[in-house]
Amino acid sequence: MSSRRLSKNVSIKKVTHSGCCHSREAEYMHRALELARRGAGLVSPNPMVGAVLVKNNKIIGEGYHCAAGKDHAEIVAIKNAKAPVRGSTLYVTLEPCCHVGRTGPCVQRIVKEKIKKVVVAVLDPNPLVDGKGVAYLKKSGVEVEVGLCVKEAIRLNEIFFKNMRCHLPFVAAKTAQSLDGKTATRMGESKWITGEQARIHAKRLRDEYDAVVVGVNTVIKDDPCLNGLHKTNFKVVIDPQMRIPVLSKLVTRYSDKLIIVTSNKNIARSHNFPGILNIIYVKSNNDVLDIKDLLKKLYALGITSIFVEGGSVTVGRFFDAGVVDKIYLFIAPQIIGGDTALSSIGGLGVRQPKNAVMLKERLIEFIGEDILVTAYTK
Amino acid sequence: MSSRRLSKNVSIKKVTHSGCCHSREAEYMHRALELARRGAGLVSPNPMVGAVLVKNNKIIGEGYHCAAGKDHAEIVAIKNAKAPVRGSTLYVTLEPCCHVGRTGPCVQRIVKEKIKKVVVAVLDPNPLVDGKGVAYLKKSGVEVEVGLCVKEAIRLNEIFFKNMRCHLPFVAAKTAQSLDGKTATRMGESKWITGEQARIHAKRLRDEYDAVVVGVNTVIKDDPCLNGLHKTNFKVVIDPQMRIPVLSKLVTRYSDKLIIVTSNKNIARSHNFPGILNIIYVKSNNDVLDIKDLLKKLYALGITSIFVEGGSVTVGRFFDAGVVDKIYLFIAPQIIGGDTALSSIGGLGVRQPKNAVMLKERLIEFIGEDILVTAYTK
Repeated sequence: MSSRRLSKNVSIKKVTHSGCCHSREAEYMHRALELARRGAGLVSPNPMVGAVLVKNNKIIGEGYHCAAGKDHAEIVAIKNAKAPVRGSTLYVTLEPCCHVGRTGPCVQRIVKEKIKKVVVAVLDPNPLVDGKGVAYLKKSGVEVEVGLCVKEAIRLNEIFFKNMRCHLPFVAAKTAQSLDGKTATRMGESKWITGEQARIHAKRLRDEYDAVVVGVNTVIKDDPCLNGLHKTNFKVVIDPQMRIPVLSKLVTRYSDKLIIVTSNKNIARSHNFPGILNIIYVKSNNDVLDIKDLLKKLYALGITSIFVEGGSVTVGRFFDAGVVDKIYLFIAPQIIGGDTALSSIGGLGVRQPKNAVMLKERLIEFIGEDILVTAYTK
Repeated sequence: MSSRRLSKNVSIKKVTHSGCCHSREAEYMHRALELARRGAGLVSPNPMVGAVLVKNNKIIGEGYHCAAGKDHAEIVAIKNAKAPVRGSTLYVTLEPCCHVGRTGPCVQRIVKEKIKKVVVAVLDPNPLVDGKGVAYLKKSGVEVEVGLCVKEAIRLNEIFFKNMRCHLPFVAAKTAQSLDGKTATRMGESKWITGEQARIHAKRLRDEYDAVVVGVNTVIKDDPCLNGLHKTNFKVVIDPQMRIPVLSKLVTRYSDKLIIVTSNKNIARSHNFPGILNIIYVKSNNDVLDIKDLLKKLYALGITSIFVEGGSVTVGRFFDAGVVDKIYLFIAPQIIGGDTALSSIGGLGVRQPKNAVMLKERLIEFIGEDILVTAYTK
């Protein structure tokens, strides 16, 4: 067993079966992860958490966090237990809290219930916790293990982890393209490359993010609403020269949800858009906006995650800035071809193949006739 | 049972379990297809054929065609039979022949052996056969069924079927690209986008085709040899203005295997390349060569199949001409990006998404870190 430091507070015993293993312990943690996912879309701004209580190799209690302000997963599992929890082992997807938020600290309850051992998938990156929960448990004589299924646990709350660790929104990019990487034909036609099922799926993905981001040319060309399937997201338009049409749907119907991002040179022109509450002014260089500055300012507005949809140049700029965390490539099984047809990811691009953005944890799915590749850049 | 005409000679009973089914009959045909594949690379210019003899639900004989001039699959199965073949059923992947080639006609032997029934996957498109074999068998009192696993049987000998039906070479195109469709960065760098395993696999694919086709710019830039893994193919260079470097490897080492394709305007300039045996002059329009004319002329030279490798423009021209039968897309799990980075498939491209080349029978494989999509256009 090797030892490594994940936090200044706690030295972590590396669990050799961490990752996607098939031990009984991992099965309990997978169950806890499964329970946690039931809180998807319900717990914001909290992370999703699941917990399982095990005694004599049997699950005696289960719980998950189902809404901000409600009981944490650990407490739900204790309350639901069908046998005395004393001497049991708790599997929990995130470090139990030690601070008094809207609910009491979980670690005190764990100690009080005389739970023997706590297996934690990952430390809570929230600076109010970040190892302090584990330290409290250890000090109180509870056996603690950290790191079982750590990767899955971080991915489960990937937006939360990005926010806590970087103080920036999580950035997902989406493209819809042919197999040869075209997002429009040489005539500029893009309706439709991917099929209806893929387009509905892409709308459903918008539900998972706080804001949808597009370049102003997409607004001028398509006049989109940018809503999710069940959610009216924030709509962020990258618009260096303030060209957004005043009669576009985003301006006329969604002004309360619209965030225009422009160059700080345009501050004086904002009176042209008196109905728009949010105009963000960011640094720029030759009318190319500074994407990193934009992300900081979006986070300051409370935007925890963005879904960058296009067009080609806008997605390219986010890649050029090196800020994309996750990508969804919808790929139609067709060839469009053409030197002048629009590429799915424009911008500047990399100089050498060795500088290309390598995609990790790739998942390939079939959505109707189309292929969806989901992957991470980091 | 519906009836449809596949040939002027024979009316075919549509076998309802045709296609990829799991009946016992299909199992026998799949076994015959499996046997046929053992002739891969050995039987040219003949098609691969496999045969299985079945009696009382047991396979009593198996055979495949193993070399031009050697026994046909049916005869091998009869000779290998471990029980009297009288009254048995023969499953064969291609219609038995009725003409005297290098071996005697198979249909006569089938009748002589008193085989009761013959199940044929597909009629032989060779005009010397093309239903006549089946007609002979029927006339001689042998029960015949045609169409079991017809799709697999045609794909097994896809080059042969294309040659017989269209009198043109089979055209496969290959690209190596990033997920966003780039075959080089904005600096023109393409070494390497895909990994070593993918590049070896691509070399192995060259073995399956008579000739590798590239544009002259690829020769100027990379000075390639274009050999397969185990085969020295013909090397076809599309070179409208006869710019191929006289010191390139193709000219200096492989002049006997080199076919230069140029505009018929350049006939007078051919004396510059006295060592090159094959220069094909094709029609052209503004220095863009007529791909269909080229295919006719390659077929006349005896080239039955070509593997179009690039670059971007050359592959694009074959797509623009609508002549690509099969495509191999090697896709590296990375993003290159960039408006000016080279697309994997250039040329003109289609005007509308509805005109895009829809890919059929898609197969997705993982070759090392890369993805290989193999598909048909027709």
